Amino acid sequence: MKRLFNPKSVAVVGVSTNSSKVGHVIFSNLIKNGYDGKVFAINPKHKTILGKECYPSLRAIPKVDVAIIAVPAKFVPNVLLDGIKNNIKNYIIISGGFGESNNTELTNKLMNIINTYKINVLGPNCIGILNTKNKFDTVFFPLHKMDRPPFGKISIISQSGGIATAIIDKAANLGIGLSKVISYGNAYNINETDLLNYLKNDDETNVIVMYLESVKDGRRFTKILKETNKKKPIIILKAGKETKGKEAAKTHTGSMSSDYIAFKASFKTSGVLEANNLTDLFNYIKIFSQPLPKGKNLGIITNGGGLGVMATDEAIKHKLNIPELNKEDIDMLKPFIPSYVTIANPFDLVADADVDRYKRALDVFMNAKNIDMVLINVLFQAPSISEQLLNPIIESSANRNKPIAVVIPGGRWSEAFATILSMNNVPTYDSPEQAIKSLRKLYEYARFKRLNKK
Amino acid sequence: MKRLFNPKSVAVVGVSTNSSKVGHVIFSNLIKNGYDGKVFAINPKHKTILGKECYPSLRAIPKVDVAIIAVPAKFVPNVLLDGIKNNIKNYIIISGGFGESNNTELTNKLMNIINTYKINVLGPNCIGILNTKNKFDTVFFPLHKMDRPPFGKISIISQSGGIATAIIDKAANLGIGLSKVISYGNAYNINETDLLNYLKNDDETNVIVMYLESVKDGRRFTKILKETNKKKPIIILKAGKETKGKEAAKTHTGSMSSDYIAFKASFKTSGVLEANNLTDLFNYIKIFSQPLPKGKNLGIITNGGGLGVMATDEAIKHKLNIPELNKEDIDMLKPFIPSYVTIANPFDLVADADVDRYKRALDVFMNAKNIDMVLINVLFQAPSISEQLLNPIIESSANRNKPIAVVIPGGRWSEAFATILSMNNVPTYDSPEQAIKSLRKLYEYARFKRLNKK
Repeated sequence: MKRLFNPKSVAVVGVSTNSSKVGHVIFSNLIKNGYDGKVFAINPKHKTILGKECYPSLRAIPKVDVAIIAVPAKFVPNVLLDGIKNNIKNYIIISGGFGESNNTELTNKLMNIINTYKINVLGPNCIGILNTKNKFDTVFFPLHKMDRPPFGKISIISQSGGIATAIIDKAANLGIGLSKVISYGNAYNINETDLLNYLKNDDETNVIVMYLESVKDGRRFTKILKETNKKKPIIILKAGKETKGKEAAKTHTGSMSSDYIAFKASFKTSGVLEANNLTDLFNYIKIFSQPLPKGKNLGIITNGGGLGVMATDEAIKHKLNIPELNKEDIDMLKPFIPSYVTIANPFDLVADADVDRYKRALDVFMNAKNIDMVLINVLFQAPSISEQLLNPIIESSANRNKPIAVVIPGGRWSEAFATILSMNNVPTYDSPEQAIKSLRKLYEYARFKRLNKK
Repeated sequence: MKRLFNPKSVAVVGVSTNSSKVGHVIFSNLIKNGYDGKVFAINPKHKTILGKECYPSLRAIPKVDVAIIAVPAKFVPNVLLDGIKNNIKNYIIISGGFGESNNTELTNKLMNIINTYKINVLGPNCIGILNTKNKFDTVFFPLHKMDRPPFGKISIISQSGGIATAIIDKAANLGIGLSKVISYGNAYNINETDLLNYLKNDDETNVIVMYLESVKDGRRFTKILKETNKKKPIIILKAGKETKGKEAAKTHTGSMSSDYIAFKASFKTSGVLEANNLTDLFNYIKIFSQPLPKGKNLGIITNGGGLGVMATDEAIKHKLNIPELNKEDIDMLKPFIPSYVTIANPFDLVADADVDRYKRALDVFMNAKNIDMVLINVLFQAPSISEQLLNPIIESSANRNKPIAVVIPGGRWSEAFATILSMNNVPTYDSPEQAIKSLRKLYEYARFKRLNKK
């Protein structure tokens, strides 16, 4: 499987001259975005494409590590047979039009080839692989329409290409690093469990995110899930929960989604974290840049009272504690805080708070013995707040003493600061409930880890 | 009250030369952002500020419609007495440091003046008013740190200045028009019910959004809520729900928040829509640009299968129907849809869908007899999708035949299209569950209106 993620040479089969076609985009992305392996274009109709030589078939080129297939479904079996004649072992089939379109005959033909010749196939009906390390990238969305994120130790396994796309694009936009993203589509050969099992031992992956509609082998899946989650956190979004959603999932990747109750049980025994929707999934991804908390005592700092009130409501709702401040911590703050500001937890620094007041509060909260994690709310719109607040927050996060999350509501000005924090591995949210839910998940994983050590 | 929103002349008391001080920012915003009334700066220490004449007190200027007070709390009573000597009737007290700081003596002094001289006071401890029509704007956040939205018929009443700020800024960022935004702070005189009662009959307000921690007079509030919601939809975010949250609310605006159960009952009898958090609040604001649906039958269109599956799950969860397509609608689509695409609801146009396929689907769904509202999911990253898809979506929304919502997940490229749609009154979301929850709220208000007509 390592070869599939790190090919030294690849071929793209079905590279059209039309730049809105999938094969063209993949070929173009590979040669433009710094992939350092050799890339062959295959299309019998052309001699050159984008100034590169074009070959008539997989038999006309030297053996490659991976063949990427983007031709209409009916041509896929013959392309595979060509590749097999040239001893090619690994294939990513982008093309759709198999089980998900009720094309049983073609599906059987494909399965038969896979089983007879023992080849490795990812797909069909998928967007394949993005490896940010070596820039191996079969995602058929043009570079100008979709940014690629920097390298980071979060990997994504997605049954849906669209969801993988949404995550890659948003991560890139926020400067959040990803390692490997795999969209595996109909999973006729390599499936979700195989991928999970690979990432379990992948040194370049610390956090695994999965979007699932169904699994092929529930028992093996649960076993690997359990083993993997003990080593690194897994966050799962399960879609196709409702009957009607299941039908939609069937049309989507050609597989009937399994019973949600069974999934729930599997998630529970494995201790994996479930995200209920795409918003939550993305929020949870962000929080894992932080160290695990020692407990569930939350400190809240804000310069907007309403944000503090809402954060408190949500913290109670999600069963986090908001402890009173210790006397020594209050005493430490007193000399620096104006008398009209109440020193408490939540700590409302009030609207005229400046960077110094934030720094004092942050310093005490980050060191307070009875606080395990810190939520910082900032209205960057305030006249007395400046960009000088960024550094103390980034440093607090970099110390990895306690997890922090930052809530920054607003528009363009505020978003600019949120992006800077995000690029420095500080999780930012635009509403308190999103941060609180994420901190809760971080705490749940920390608890799971503690219980499994004993 | 009309005069408070539409003053012909105002004075800002406490205009410092320091540009990070509240009084300075308010004065600067008023003279820079096109407010067309007369503006006086008051500060005994200076002759001019920002090139304008500066006056020693409210007695030294002609009578103004509204005095905006931004001096330390202890000076507020004397400033009021100066204004009263000059027959000034309306005051916005920005300054904090009263009940919320446990300053009972000062609070009593202030109350005494209000009651004795029958003046109208908004605040203290608030950001006051933004009227986008005449640019009367006491929001003490500098223009470069916080954009102001265009005019639109949504008005905001917020107990918290910070939450008002977050909404104004985000609305501006998305091009969503607002009418009047009022942050009323401690509400010692003008309270939430007075403001609601005013907006009930305000021609420039079609939708009312409230952020509440407490109310002064529950019975009157419920009565006005009921009357108003029959005329125009009210969306409320109630914070300070939990005991600990209530305490935080007390420190915030100096008033004990009332029992959440009582609020719940009041919201239910009035038929108002409750938002559970800031994310939901903003999502619901957006959907009210759309006409009310005739029923709860939802049509879903997508070029990403996973988005369709998640949208379906959420629709079922929120009790919307996803009807089968009628035969005549399927027949109408057949000639234009490739055979590998299944014509159904949800309608997955698949990843190679172009603008024409979307237009055909949208046209049939917008006219289908058994569909009341339409959710359009678009991965704008797809090579075959172009900006030409914007126009059919904007036109469908402008026809006001059925409500639509658009889900656009992704990064910079996709967000650019989402912003364009948003500026054209099309509600956009970055995840299906946000759109579905919002459509559900729109349906609930439509049902409330229907039941209250009979």
